[in-house]
Amino acid sequence: MENNIKTVIVGSIGLDDIETPFEKKKSILGGSVSYACAAASFFSQTGMVGIVGTDFPESYMDIYKKCGIDLQGLQQVEGKTFAWSGVYDADMINRETISTDLNVFETFMPELPQAYRKAPFLLLGNIAPELQLHVLAESDNPEFIIADTMDLWINIARDSLIELIGKIDMLTLNDSEARLLTGKYHLRHCAEKILNMGPKYVIIKKGEHGAMLFSADGIFIIPAYPVQAVVDPTGAGDSFAGGLIGHLATLGEVNDTNIRAAMLYGSIVASFGVEEFSLDKLTTLNKADIEARCNEFKTMLAVT
Amino acid sequence: MENNIKTVIVGSIGLDDIETPFEKKKSILGGSVSYACAAASFFSQTGMVGIVGTDFPESYMDIYKKCGIDLQGLQQVEGKTFAWSGVYDADMINRETISTDLNVFETFMPELPQAYRKAPFLLLGNIAPELQLHVLAESDNPEFIIADTMDLWINIARDSLIELIGKIDMLTLNDSEARLLTGKYHLRHCAEKILNMGPKYVIIKKGEHGAMLFSADGIFIIPAYPVQAVVDPTGAGDSFAGGLIGHLATLGEVNDTNIRAAMLYGSIVASFGVEEFSLDKLTTLNKADIEARCNEFKTMLAVT
Repeated sequence: MENNIKTVIVGSIGLDDIETPFEKKKSILGGSVSYACAAASFFSQTGMVGIVGTDFPESYMDIYKKCGIDLQGLQQVEGKTFAWSGVYDADMINRETISTDLNVFETFMPELPQAYRKAPFLLLGNIAPELQLHVLAESDNPEFIIADTMDLWINIARDSLIELIGKIDMLTLNDSEARLLTGKYHLRHCAEKILNMGPKYVIIKKGEHGAMLFSADGIFIIPAYPVQAVVDPTGAGDSFAGGLIGHLATLGEVNDTNIRAAMLYGSIVASFGVEEFSLDKLTTLNKADIEARCNEFKTMLAVT
Repeated sequence: MENNIKTVIVGSIGLDDIETPFEKKKSILGGSVSYACAAASFFSQTGMVGIVGTDFPESYMDIYKKCGIDLQGLQQVEGKTFAWSGVYDADMINRETISTDLNVFETFMPELPQAYRKAPFLLLGNIAPELQLHVLAESDNPEFIIADTMDLWINIARDSLIELIGKIDMLTLNDSEARLLTGKYHLRHCAEKILNMGPKYVIIKKGEHGAMLFSADGIFIIPAYPVQAVVDPTGAGDSFAGGLIGHLATLGEVNDTNIRAAMLYGSIVASFGVEEFSLDKLTTLNKADIEARCNEFKTMLAVT
């Protein structure tokens, strides 16, 4: 089995306290690598690189296993798991971080198991660029490397981030982060500047408004699937990136057409993910649900 | 010529003072019917219903004529033209109204010239619902009626607005207005409630994020074309609605497929409009420019 790992994803694992205008949840399974691996696993064999403490519930391990995620790259060490708590505004889009306890994440040094090193698809989820560079250095020339980042690293680790951006195939970040990174306002100008930093592709995420892909092949714009009711938007960007790389790993060649298709699948997995807290929806979903919504979404996007 | 009028549009004509982070313009030609008629005129013979004062510059009349707009429905009366001034934020999206002088608009009673009454396509631009109802009463059973509205009328003339909504085929309004009108948050729920009020179609406009069409046929989502540099976003929604109805008037049957195509054209005309102040861009544009950008936009939206 271990030689079949197509996709490797590194990122955070957190125990989240989340408050929305409608509900409050305590210590639920979260973190970028949880969402991304669950999403990618619908499409290809995915290995998780992350860290948890000894307090990490066995039932959460079972969720990962139920998703079919390979856990050879998951470290469990003495101490408490990374914990995050946040409160969403009435619009369910903006949120305030109440607390962040790094705990075992503070000294995390990701290690790629042997079985992961030759995986052709690598997603460097949102963690410190130094750690992303470390994972990259341990991997054996992956075919396609995506990195995600956030405003924190643009502000405090810009040099390492720029070094990283020079070594990857695709950067994903949200619109405000693209503006912060480049000092430009219009997204086309932001993208142009990022492409000049090295990657062949950049995806600018616009939350509930979808995402845009930029490359030498042109621009692709995908709206978000209009979910009936968002229960918890946490992790949507991670599910998107996970679904994207997981699906892309099944398509053979990486090119503009295939990335567009993979973005469609990523969007759909993310749209399901926000319908429940944590991985609750992703763990009860099957491939047919995803295909059906993909087809429905395509009819929503069709112009002749 | 007068019997060829396919599209009639009523709305405001203003002399606008506009300040953006980059430029300040005084007394430029604006108003919903100016933008909408200029946009519609690319596609079908369009008649304008509006009012100006004796101060309205002859050169602005010439702009309307250059666009090929039929002006039989344009009243010129003693007094000053409606004037609006506003300042845009750094993001070029949000704006503050500095002053609104209704002037001749205060006593405006739109009158449909005989030649306009049988026009099959009617766009009731954003004015008081009472006036929209009056224009509707004067017209002779149009094939397709679109009305646009805004928060002001939802707040101060809700009953007339609801009466109007019961008599039209399509309502266009922006996302915050849809929420205000319906008391719902999710756009699908807003749209459902509006469709229950009478119209077969509702378009919820999302500014720089595009627009969504809702009907019994389903949902259509169109992003906005990513313009390189927005110079002045004023009138974008009006150009969109004008381009939409003007193009729709050329397509024969009104149905979901044709409305989708018309929304594509409306989006593209609007995208050109914001590249200059006032009608500056729309008056120098030709049909081939529009077709070329429509084709470019379609490649940006294509998923296989």
